[in-house]
Amino acid sequence: MSTGVRRRMGVEERRQQLIGVALDLFSRRSPDEVSIDEIATAAGISRPLVYHYFPGKLSLYQAALRRAAEDLAGRFAEPHEGPLGTRLLRVMRRYFDFVDEHGPGFSALMRGGPAVSAEGAGAKEHVSATNALIDSVRQAAYEQILAHLGVTDASARLELVVRSWISLAESTALLWLDGRRIPRAELELKLVHDFAALAAVSAAYDEDMARLLRTMVKDEPADGPFAELAGRLISLAS
Amino acid sequence: MSTGVRRRMGVEERRQQLIGVALDLFSRRSPDEVSIDEIATAAGISRPLVYHYFPGKLSLYQAALRRAAEDLAGRFAEPHEGPLGTRLLRVMRRYFDFVDEHGPGFSALMRGGPAVSAEGAGAKEHVSATNALIDSVRQAAYEQILAHLGVTDASARLELVVRSWISLAESTALLWLDGRRIPRAELELKLVHDFAALAAVSAAYDEDMARLLRTMVKDEPADGPFAELAGRLISLAS
Repeated sequence: MSTGVRRRMGVEERRQQLIGVALDLFSRRSPDEVSIDEIATAAGISRPLVYHYFPGKLSLYQAALRRAAEDLAGRFAEPHEGPLGTRLLRVMRRYFDFVDEHGPGFSALMRGGPAVSAEGAGAKEHVSATNALIDSVRQAAYEQILAHLGVTDASARLELVVRSWISLAESTALLWLDGRRIPRAELELKLVHDFAALAAVSAAYDEDMARLLRTMVKDEPADGPFAELAGRLISLAS
Repeated sequence: MSTGVRRRMGVEERRQQLIGVALDLFSRRSPDEVSIDEIATAAGISRPLVYHYFPGKLSLYQAALRRAAEDLAGRFAEPHEGPLGTRLLRVMRRYFDFVDEHGPGFSALMRGGPAVSAEGAGAKEHVSATNALIDSVRQAAYEQILAHLGVTDASARLELVVRSWISLAESTALLWLDGRRIPRAELELKLVHDFAALAAVSAAYDEDMARLLRTMVKDEPADGPFAELAGRLISLAS
């Protein structure tokens, strides 16, 4: 603190501080490797005091996960202005920012189910709470995309395109984290293109999807990501 | 048995029979809902005898999962003959056969991490063993696809296309199981098209991928899945 005086925190303030410290540690290494002692040291308090606020590592992990989930869901919010491709590209940039900030923790969580594997009673509840959080983030992403497409009641085919693309974005991010062999900016743009490509494949066989695709690309500028891809694909085909 | 006489099984034969019975039950309902009593009844033996062969439900579930994983990996094997699109379509048919046969068990496993959530000691080992099995199936699929493409040393971009498409196939199958609102034959063909589309997006920005794509489509017949998609996309664009 700038005054150099150690101020006594309120209960809720201390809880929030602990969650922040824990999230930072759970993000930078595989959460299984982070101990309560380490969290206590990083927060500048004693181990028993951590237990005063959270019954155990599992509940602290759950709280950190909830904060991360809210943070990530918030990054999907994007003003309804300008070309769709550009909006999606901005969201992809914030998504990769998040993945970058929380790399090892994100990886452990998405690869191995719950990254803090619970032993003993409560393991089942932990698995379902964790899965429910992951699903809530996917659902937030799904609803944001539908809102940008101006669709309130998605057809089964549109739902498939959007939801399966969301899983493609997850696996692309996980593959990126594993060695970072491709620049992330390339992958952010690739995912925007992948979305257009998957929508086009669906539109090739479904009149509703074709109508939606036409609306999607109608206002795209000639230098936007969708038009650029189309131009490159045409020159590839010839 | 056709003779009506109850033959005494050998140890390994009995184990294999139990695995088969358990796999069948774990496939048809969420594995968490299947009891050892039920497995014993379906196998026509006593509950203590089940425990004689397997220490608990978890080890029986693991054995059933191993058999299912080998079965699924085997379905990716496809003769290296004829157009690539047609080969991939045949593999997709067998993949959806598998998903169809093991629906609820597949869903529980892929959605919730391990479908039999272990309580108590051994939970962690169970999670890693289950994840290793799922990864081995993904790896088998990945290697089969590379072999069909005639590639031994995949570039980072090709690896990304193939592995992220495999996750797309998983999420498409899971979405299909949730209500079966789209005919599976349509999804089998869609996934073949998705593969081509994701490869084309990558090829639009990468010369190595472009070369590979040209090799891929060179021998495709005019009535194959790749040519059909291209034709439809061209008419959609105009």
